[in-house]
Amino acid sequence: MTVEFISVGTEILLGNIVNTNAAYLSERCAALGLSCYHQSVVGDNEERLEDAVRLALSRSDILILSGGLGPTKDDLTKEVTAKVFGKELYEDEHTKERIKDFFRRMQSGEVTPNNWKQAMVPEGAKVIDNHNGTAPGLIIEENGKTAILLPGPPNEIRPMFEQDVAPYLDRLEPEGIYSKMVKICGIGESKAETMIADLMDSQTNPTIAPYAKTGEVHLRVTAKAADEEKAEELLKPVVDELYRRFGDKIYTTEEDVTLEASIVKILAERGLTVTTAESCTGGLLAGRLMNVPGASDVYQEGYITYANDAKERLLGVKRETLMKYGAVSCQTAHEMARGAAGTAGADAALSVTGIAGPDGGTEEKPVGLVYVGCYVKGHVHVEEFRFTGNRDKNREYAVARALTLLREELLKN
Amino acid sequence: MTVEFISVGTEILLGNIVNTNAAYLSERCAALGLSCYHQSVVGDNEERLEDAVRLALSRSDILILSGGLGPTKDDLTKEVTAKVFGKELYEDEHTKERIKDFFRRMQSGEVTPNNWKQAMVPEGAKVIDNHNGTAPGLIIEENGKTAILLPGPPNEIRPMFEQDVAPYLDRLEPEGIYSKMVKICGIGESKAETMIADLMDSQTNPTIAPYAKTGEVHLRVTAKAADEEKAEELLKPVVDELYRRFGDKIYTTEEDVTLEASIVKILAERGLTVTTAESCTGGLLAGRLMNVPGASDVYQEGYITYANDAKERLLGVKRETLMKYGAVSCQTAHEMARGAAGTAGADAALSVTGIAGPDGGTEEKPVGLVYVGCYVKGHVHVEEFRFTGNRDKNREYAVARALTLLREELLKN
Repeated sequence: MTVEFISVGTEILLGNIVNTNAAYLSERCAALGLSCYHQSVVGDNEERLEDAVRLALSRSDILILSGGLGPTKDDLTKEVTAKVFGKELYEDEHTKERIKDFFRRMQSGEVTPNNWKQAMVPEGAKVIDNHNGTAPGLIIEENGKTAILLPGPPNEIRPMFEQDVAPYLDRLEPEGIYSKMVKICGIGESKAETMIADLMDSQTNPTIAPYAKTGEVHLRVTAKAADEEKAEELLKPVVDELYRRFGDKIYTTEEDVTLEASIVKILAERGLTVTTAESCTGGLLAGRLMNVPGASDVYQEGYITYANDAKERLLGVKRETLMKYGAVSCQTAHEMARGAAGTAGADAALSVTGIAGPDGGTEEKPVGLVYVGCYVKGHVHVEEFRFTGNRDKNREYAVARALTLLREELLKN
Repeated sequence: MTVEFISVGTEILLGNIVNTNAAYLSERCAALGLSCYHQSVVGDNEERLEDAVRLALSRSDILILSGGLGPTKDDLTKEVTAKVFGKELYEDEHTKERIKDFFRRMQSGEVTPNNWKQAMVPEGAKVIDNHNGTAPGLIIEENGKTAILLPGPPNEIRPMFEQDVAPYLDRLEPEGIYSKMVKICGIGESKAETMIADLMDSQTNPTIAPYAKTGEVHLRVTAKAADEEKAEELLKPVVDELYRRFGDKIYTTEEDVTLEASIVKILAERGLTVTTAESCTGGLLAGRLMNVPGASDVYQEGYITYANDAKERLLGVKRETLMKYGAVSCQTAHEMARGAAGTAGADAALSVTGIAGPDGGTEEKPVGLVYVGCYVKGHVHVEEFRFTGNRDKNREYAVARALTLLREELLKN
């Protein structure tokens, strides 16, 4: 089966947004065993959209359209696709109720009339409820061709695809693609690739594809097989070999487990709590730990201490240390971690102090210099990093390295 | 003049990389006054690439191809485009020397023979030197149609576009595109659109296009004009009209100013400081404020208080309040904001307490219920929100609403 994507929206043609939906749909459809040979983008224009829909349906079995389902007059995807299939639109009572309910839950007051446009659906179409927005997804099938219409916002299209579209597509394609995501922290991308170059060259089924994330490397191991059991037979020896090479640098082989989730799990299993004391990352590290549902079992409080006074008062960092070594120093990171654990009464603590940029650097302490401290049960370990990105990137790297350090220190114990 | 893009590469169709080149080219060509109505992606396949090139040249004046210019057998962009234009390839001595020189500078030892493929150019084509890689860029013109072939890696295509392609395109198109981004907070997208529906319908130059962001609406006002001064004459009355309708809900008309930056600016101008006390957002709010370079002038310390004990000890929330109303309540948000300001000695404070999900909701206090408190100079204002997203989205909305509330309270004073 072949699949093709049309992303609808003038904002993509103008370059105002990057087309991440296309990348997401491509990756997911490849994983479902569908072949994709074409993608295109058209603006909110009736004639050009119609041409694009006709061309796509002439050469592919399945067409997935994203965007252009909203309440405004510019939104034409549904109208045009229905026209190509020769279908009329009717008002779907169920969707109307769902939209009403959505606005009620958001307490946004009255529903502006243009929203009812979104309750109009093509006759014979399957309606997919949107749990994160107003426009429903739609599936239209006819004469061996399928069009799937999905909303544009990533937080709407992704849950809808995972929950309803992926299972639907999975039934269409008998030979599936099965994969394991081997997630590694604490090793750089090029080193990781060098360590598995022989495997990547020799493997055809499964294949191994590396993806670099900030401070992590993810290896997707993908097998093509008739069913999950046969896929598992193919995947297991490769994943075992990766464990032999990377050892406990692998923090998970589950698609949806993040580094922070793997750490929260270790802490929860051991009945330990953690706290954070952040200077340059200013809450981002705590924010990432708190991404994990249930993080409240292991995290009770944390501190953002930008000013020296706050480091002294909240964390008990010695004024002498700040005067002698400076706020961005190994010694300060050390005292911040120990002090945070003490103030919070936590078993573990992470501290971050550094110069994120763009200003504040000196020759001796340049932008990108970051110290991360990690306290675990009485012992403090500090690491120095020199990042070379912009402010955002330096802070993001500092957070990733802090989490990696905490994981390593916990595994040592 | 119309322009169209074809991105060539199977890795894009598989979703292994996000097509950021298309977004970059779109934005740059729009700024140069070219109209783009189509973008597409094809894999490294001769037949499909030829079809795509022929289709693009049939409907657009200028076709920009990116990718597929490398040394391997998969790289077919040049060969296919030359075939469509009926041109032979010949070895370009200048490019051959440049490639030799490139390898010498990179100290990569001898040049592998497949690299010489990149010195082959179509007869009559303009050759653009690549200062960051081996494959040259190429411009082929014939019968009023132009094909521009550029390498795929972002660090090669971007400098090449800026230095050689943009000036070339600029000569083709006398009119440029100029725009202002009017950024609004505190009004939902559909309400904002309703408020300017008449303007959107009646405007042709400038045009107004709305974009929804979490908790914000951005309106891009775009004018086509011969130069910046004439563009300004067209843009000013429209921007003025938007100010009349949205008033101080507009926080900036600058492309690169964020909501948090606009707030840090207000605080800095008034010599005020701010602090944060976060429960469910767990540091994200502080993290967003700290995104702003120079935020340390207005933010000295902040608190993440997940546990009730932390709310009492760090912020002085009364145990009685927590017992009677619960941690997620208007009263607790109120005391958190006032307490945080007191502990930090800050002029303003934001507090967030809520149920981000997926667990922890009850009938009375469902997932998505969030209270945001804002203290400014002795006065506390609390707002209740009921968000309907997943954990991530609820936290992101809570942060956006908290920033909006702080801005509103500051403007009241």
